[in-house]
Amino acid sequence: MTSIPLTRRAEPADAVTVARLLHAFNSEFDTPSPGVDVLARRLTLLLAEPTTFAIVGGAPAVGVALVTLRANVRSDGPVALLDEMYVAPAHRGTGIGSKIIEHMVRTCRELGVAEIEINVDESDTDTMRFYEHHGFTNGDPDTGEKAFSFYRSL
Amino acid sequence: MTSIPLTRRAEPADAVTVARLLHAFNSEFDTPSPGVDVLARRLTLLLAEPTTFAIVGGAPAVGVALVTLRANVRSDGPVALLDEMYVAPAHRGTGIGSKIIEHMVRTCRELGVAEIEINVDESDTDTMRFYEHHGFTNGDPDTGEKAFSFYRSL
Repeated sequence: MTSIPLTRRAEPADAVTVARLLHAFNSEFDTPSPGVDVLARRLTLLLAEPTTFAIVGGAPAVGVALVTLRANVRSDGPVALLDEMYVAPAHRGTGIGSKIIEHMVRTCRELGVAEIEINVDESDTDTMRFYEHHGFTNGDPDTGEKAFSFYRSL
Repeated sequence: MTSIPLTRRAEPADAVTVARLLHAFNSEFDTPSPGVDVLARRLTLLLAEPTTFAIVGGAPAVGVALVTLRANVRSDGPVALLDEMYVAPAHRGTGIGSKIIEHMVRTCRELGVAEIEINVDESDTDTMRFYEHHGFTNGDPDTGEKAFSFYRSL
């Protein structure tokens, strides 16, 4: 009997699986979603590039972390941004989210990432506590000053 | 007589100029800086890639905006992050910062960018006002909810 790993790095062939999870994420939180087909098309391209990776958890997959990497001037290694992180409602509290995050951090280390960033809405206190538990911090360790994320759509 | 444009997109040959401005930025705000030589080495590489661009203002340059682009699943076009924005103290209040931002936004449009992001420390109210004046917002337009930027160094 072959043991199935709990978490694994997604391949381009997993695009539809990841797209379904991200679409469920958008639907659950009333975020506009381009739909499974468009997401799958984009993910097929993105997951084949060295600047994007995804970690899926469960078999079949019930959770996903999607990460993009960018070069930056402050370090030789890239900066990673956790763009999306989702676990299906029925599987929350099982520890699968933590396993996905741990695998995501391990993968970032292997890729020489200098820093991992995550944007979190100010009301998502459970989410903040989850990321703090996994070593993330909001703000300068010396001053405690937090950073806000501004944006402009074009 | 040839007119010198107030702002222009930097080329890899401008790496030392941009590095000096970013080093001055770090020094002014007591941020650790790898130094002009290391910054210039990185910028020579970064400015030759399609995923990084810089807009410099003034001749000689007295201000700079450094932008990195990343693919993302929410749009066909890339997302841009304004990583660094600096105007030398003697030239603040002259409007050069606004000219640089306007050129930066124009360049993002030309590159098909879907959204521009900026992380701002919560105490930098003047900086926030500057970006809000240029069409940036912190938070969801419907709910007013702000987003925090979390990170973990590896």
